[in-house]
Amino acid sequence: MPGIPEIVSGDDLVEVIAAAVIADSGDTQSGGLEDGDILTVTSKIVSKAEGRAVQAADREQAITDETVRVVASREHPNGVTRIVENRLGLVMAAAGVDSSNTPDGIVLLLPLDPDETARHLCAGLRERFGVNVGVVITDTVGRPWRRGQADIAIGAAGIRVLDDLRGTVDASGRPLAVSVTAVADELAAATDLVKGKAGGFPVAIVRGLAHYVAELEAPGARSLVRVGADDMFRLGTKEAWLAGFDEAHDDTDLKED
Amino acid sequence: MPGIPEIVSGDDLVEVIAAAVIADSGDTQSGGLEDGDILTVTSKIVSKAEGRAVQAADREQAITDETVRVVASREHPNGVTRIVENRLGLVMAAAGVDSSNTPDGIVLLLPLDPDETARHLCAGLRERFGVNVGVVITDTVGRPWRRGQADIAIGAAGIRVLDDLRGTVDASGRPLAVSVTAVADELAAATDLVKGKAGGFPVAIVRGLAHYVAELEAPGARSLVRVGADDMFRLGTKEAWLAGFDEAHDDTDLKED
Repeated sequence: MPGIPEIVSGDDLVEVIAAAVIADSGDTQSGGLEDGDILTVTSKIVSKAEGRAVQAADREQAITDETVRVVASREHPNGVTRIVENRLGLVMAAAGVDSSNTPDGIVLLLPLDPDETARHLCAGLRERFGVNVGVVITDTVGRPWRRGQADIAIGAAGIRVLDDLRGTVDASGRPLAVSVTAVADELAAATDLVKGKAGGFPVAIVRGLAHYVAELEAPGARSLVRVGADDMFRLGTKEAWLAGFDEAHDDTDLKED
Repeated sequence: MPGIPEIVSGDDLVEVIAAAVIADSGDTQSGGLEDGDILTVTSKIVSKAEGRAVQAADREQAITDETVRVVASREHPNGVTRIVENRLGLVMAAAGVDSSNTPDGIVLLLPLDPDETARHLCAGLRERFGVNVGVVITDTVGRPWRRGQADIAIGAAGIRVLDDLRGTVDASGRPLAVSVTAVADELAAATDLVKGKAGGFPVAIVRGLAHYVAELEAPGARSLVRVGADDMFRLGTKEAWLAGFDEAHDDTDLKED
């Protein structure tokens, strides 16, 4: 989606996005949006609208303030790199504190409550245009075991963030026992491919997946956060090793496709 | 993409996919394919074509044979669940050995060399239709810290699997220091949203991302595998904790967007 201007603190993103979709479509009634469209919004512009800027000199303290748990930490010539779980439950380098596409001397914290912001955006766009859309707020993360980064959902409203296929049947008629698709994360990854990292396209529209659109109050991206006790992929970690491997777990760790 | 029949051992997937795109498009010359299209193919049909089936009774031994390193293991009433690094360098539950969408009594191993298969498919489709396409072979994985599964690339040919943006500039003109997009994984995730898990649509076509299409011999999905020494996200693991946090690392663990 073209036409999103540079965002500053206090901007109402419903109005900004509404103006952009109207300008792009020429349609003041619907903004060119259709029932079932899903908008993905880069967290960077949410942080800017919320005024989540801090001075770059205060970056390390900001990371500490956002941190709930340090997953890994390493000193190097330029300082300390920390992979941490932040207050949103997300495991990220530097707690998600970021300096790209920001004014000089400024770093940005992640949005305060991205699920709440997603609900606000979703409700605002649904009301403004009378269409049943969904909203995902995205951010970029590194991953264990894989090179490169990918986008995930850190906020969501009006969509089914997980598609729980357990109990449905495969092409052979046998029940799927463990398949739960991380829909919101896959929507984030999909639209990263068209939004890019240069900052010019912070909003994308996904059309054709209306079956994932849900009621405004459907569980948000917070429900994609897996807590330690049921995360078998985390069992290689120091905490789990010390605790033993005997916590309860769900079987969504497994796979089938 | 509709029209992919049930695959059996020995099927030539170039011929199968060619027949399906011709049937879908009605175009015997190009199969409706265009320069820059990227086809994603579910690993399940590659495994079937390669005859990678084993008896379900031999499942545990098959998992052991595919395993290079056990990341986590847990006994439960139905047996043992193992998260392992397999011979492809992929960290997966049950080494990727899978029983959904397979004949009764059969489990399927992952393809023998998915990058090589992707090159074969890519070369075959390029030659058959005279179009410059890319190919990604996908599989579904669980992830640490996140609920639900997402698709990643386990094989690739004819595309840039990583988009290394380090040295390019953001919207403010400042260099991006750490951004490397896992393009092939995001393509896999994107097309999982339209392929689904019921087995009916094992091939999808991505159009509009021609800038990611590359020469046939571009690095494959194996290059997305991050080895331990430079994986700071893995630093919470038992191995790293025992080894200390002092291995060399690259800074693609960090984020910016």
